[in-house]
Amino acid sequence: MSCEVNNLKFNADGLIPAIVQDVRSKEVLMLAYMNAESLHKTLETGETWFYSRSRQELWHKGATSGNIQKVKEVFYDCDADALLVMVEQQGVACHTGEKTCFHNRVDGIKENQDVQGNCSQVRNQTTD
Amino acid sequence: MSCEVNNLKFNADGLIPAIVQDVRSKEVLMLAYMNAESLHKTLETGETWFYSRSRQELWHKGATSGNIQKVKEVFYDCDADALLVMVEQQGVACHTGEKTCFHNRVDGIKENQDVQGNCSQVRNQTTD
Repeated sequence: MSCEVNNLKFNADGLIPAIVQDVRSKEVLMLAYMNAESLHKTLETGETWFYSRSRQELWHKGATSGNIQKVKEVFYDCDADALLVMVEQQGVACHTGEKTCFHNRVDGIKENQDVQGNCSQVRNQTTD
Repeated sequence: MSCEVNNLKFNADGLIPAIVQDVRSKEVLMLAYMNAESLHKTLETGETWFYSRSRQELWHKGATSGNIQKVKEVFYDCDADALLVMVEQQGVACHTGEKTCFHNRVDGIKENQDVQGNCSQVRNQTTD
């Protein structure tokens, strides 16, 4: 166990957000939460473990789907209250079958000229 | 304003975590939080606005430092409770002067052979 881990700031629920990024493609795959125990398991096993807020239990990513994440590097931010986990993703990251959980695009950014009228189109794309 | 925004799930404090990624280098720059108002401002202005949990106020990234983030795309995840904001970063993202807030590395991953003894080295690196 690395000593830096003791300096991390977990929130009132004992959790810290963990961004998971593909080490090769650099795609951001997902955002999940770790408690101290799941972080320890992640570092000890070299595979990602999270804490499921809905199920209130530890969650070994890929244990049932086979979509394991092999951990290559872990970083923490300047406030020590967020993690960035660089992984080799086996299969896909998202339970929907998409490569990344961030496959839904928000329209309506100022620079876009066609802000209006794109909602249904985007909505359809995101329900594939 | 895009209609998808109405489907987002803000937490009990009215916040949603927003991962900020450099659209060119693909580096993850920071994790910050938005409330509905800061998300609206982000979409309306094409620059990132966050909600500062410590100062309890809206925060226009780069307003004082000049390190503005020009928003190119925004994605939300499969649970609709996290955002990924793709930006062109002007200057650096981190208040420490580092390009990214995630410049501190956690040692101690199973695959590393030299887990022990690296703490002080990494500690020194991270206090630059």
